[in-house]
Amino acid sequence: MAVAALFAGTVDAQELNNFNFGGRAKPIVSPEVVGDSVTFRLNANYATQVLLSGNWMPMGQTVALKKGTDGIWQTTLKAPYAEIYTYNFIVDGVSTNDPQNFMIQRDGTRYLNMLMVLGERSSVYNESTKRGTVEHRWYDSQSLGINRRMTVYLPYGYEANPKKKYPVLYLLHGGGGDEEAWTSMGRTAQILDNLIEQGKAEPMIVVMPNGNPNQQAASTMGLPTITLDTRAPENANAYVKSLVNEIVPFIEKNYRAIPKKSARAIAGLSMGGGHTTSATILFPNTFDYICPMSCGIRESDHLDADLQGIKKAGYKLYWVGCGNDDFAMPGTKILDAALTRNGMEHTLFTSDGGHEWKNWRLYLQTFAQLLFK
Amino acid sequence: MAVAALFAGTVDAQELNNFNFGGRAKPIVSPEVVGDSVTFRLNANYATQVLLSGNWMPMGQTVALKKGTDGIWQTTLKAPYAEIYTYNFIVDGVSTNDPQNFMIQRDGTRYLNMLMVLGERSSVYNESTKRGTVEHRWYDSQSLGINRRMTVYLPYGYEANPKKKYPVLYLLHGGGGDEEAWTSMGRTAQILDNLIEQGKAEPMIVVMPNGNPNQQAASTMGLPTITLDTRAPENANAYVKSLVNEIVPFIEKNYRAIPKKSARAIAGLSMGGGHTTSATILFPNTFDYICPMSCGIRESDHLDADLQGIKKAGYKLYWVGCGNDDFAMPGTKILDAALTRNGMEHTLFTSDGGHEWKNWRLYLQTFAQLLFK
Repeated sequence: MAVAALFAGTVDAQELNNFNFGGRAKPIVSPEVVGDSVTFRLNANYATQVLLSGNWMPMGQTVALKKGTDGIWQTTLKAPYAEIYTYNFIVDGVSTNDPQNFMIQRDGTRYLNMLMVLGERSSVYNESTKRGTVEHRWYDSQSLGINRRMTVYLPYGYEANPKKKYPVLYLLHGGGGDEEAWTSMGRTAQILDNLIEQGKAEPMIVVMPNGNPNQQAASTMGLPTITLDTRAPENANAYVKSLVNEIVPFIEKNYRAIPKKSARAIAGLSMGGGHTTSATILFPNTFDYICPMSCGIRESDHLDADLQGIKKAGYKLYWVGCGNDDFAMPGTKILDAALTRNGMEHTLFTSDGGHEWKNWRLYLQTFAQLLFK
Repeated sequence: MAVAALFAGTVDAQELNNFNFGGRAKPIVSPEVVGDSVTFRLNANYATQVLLSGNWMPMGQTVALKKGTDGIWQTTLKAPYAEIYTYNFIVDGVSTNDPQNFMIQRDGTRYLNMLMVLGERSSVYNESTKRGTVEHRWYDSQSLGINRRMTVYLPYGYEANPKKKYPVLYLLHGGGGDEEAWTSMGRTAQILDNLIEQGKAEPMIVVMPNGNPNQQAASTMGLPTITLDTRAPENANAYVKSLVNEIVPFIEKNYRAIPKKSARAIAGLSMGGGHTTSATILFPNTFDYICPMSCGIRESDHLDADLQGIKKAGYKLYWVGCGNDDFAMPGTKILDAALTRNGMEHTLFTSDGGHEWKNWRLYLQTFAQLLFK
């Protein structure tokens, strides 16, 4: 297994460092990769404590860096398995990024340094050579009364083939996320670029809307929110209705999308998984591919009837993913059992770990290969 | 004058704070705006020193925050004039972002917190209501032998008017920048959205390529660079040649761009200003609008002949911008004098301050109103 900061997959740390420091003598390298270990360093001569917090560590655990005589703190760890991880330093109690590592992922309102451990599982997170276009597009939601931002991935070749129409995956984020979550934490563009280039996935458009119905766009855009009581009956499923009644028609009007159920997939994580199950129950004739991730469903006296509606309308794939340690696993098992009880063909895909991006990236690269075939 | 963190133009600090903290009791607000002053706060109970570094302060100057009994450090300052500024905290010698302020701009490899002081000059930096599309697009450079990333701004209405063709502004970044510099630090999308919505600027496509010929994309994308000796004769003007011979045709093939000199503008800051003067000297028949910013030109025995080539080819606008304290001012004066000496109509626009983004945003919002008219 090779270990590397993301860029180190292609640029070695020395190059990175020169980029950062213009080749100054004795530059600080962090993270530095040697075999299966990774070393983190921070120049913090006046700090009294420097901790490393990485999302591969048990919740709440940190690792203390040791201060050298040169005022540079460091620690060397065995690298976690092949995936993308995030980390930050805590300097005298204050969370800070690694100034040597300019690879940053935004998770909600937090900016976290990125570490990629190279390996088979993470290979599709690297840049491919045939790259699609990623655009930020605005649409008017009549039902919500606001102009809203979405991220749209257009596969390599979309512009060069003006007659070709494409199927569409509607890919939904979770609570605290926004329209940039899947392209930042999720590496969606790289994953689709690689799978399409390797012939493992069909060329497809991926639409990543903002799933917070009170928001116009990611909070980092600084736009005002609207007040929306999502518990009020008239606002029930406000976002899901906007997705199916407004976003889907907008995409099929503005892009060369195949306007058929057989060319529409919906997938989402956590809250977005809830949006996925709700959208397919409320609108069983819209999507042929249904992939909820890390999201439970509640037993109810109408659950069977809801699922029978989907069964009656017909579907091509019902793919459910969840981590073994995910708090959503009990609800996922309810969904799995209900699908079985209702005689609905489906896949339950489980993996190590919990409610986290390493699983959602794995699920995307797994079910994306099953869509539109 | 109203003062606010950027989002505070539309969302007050309390709302921001609730967004950030889910309405927890006694949340920390930073920056907090009251009248013409701004207060910065950081929860850092274990730190021994917290400094504020803002780019509105004299080079190298910082302001010390004072620690309260609750472990929260703070300082209140008179706000600088209406513009966008960046700042960070220095905790026990280590630079860190303000955890309460998720408005971040990336300047090269540095992530800096953003503060916007509202006022007439900065009003076009806010979100408008009719927003264009911003996309990241890849093109193959035959001359450089790499696939390269550019940012393209499509004005509001581009997609809704499939028959309409648009003029194009090629907007170039400076040294240390990349294809995201003008949309991050430069607020290009917001500036054009506002000026177009207000009828002050023509609807136009804005193309923001990567001006580092050895790079495929921003270093934050983690892609390998190529070795290119820019001093080697065969590599002279490698980027400028790629811009005119490859990027311009790519744009005119892939977008509804008007393929005419009268519908092409070129502008750039610093290194990009050098690219602007070089491109127009080497290819005098390509651009009718020429706007170098914060960039000098050297006296040479061929300067007059170079400029005469542009004069002979004809142009509609030669607009030169530079800060009074900019180290590029002497070279700017050489360009100004040479244009005058050669009987070439032009504008020299000067402003307070130096080699900095507050000037480049001001120049963009100023010359953008003069293009394609």
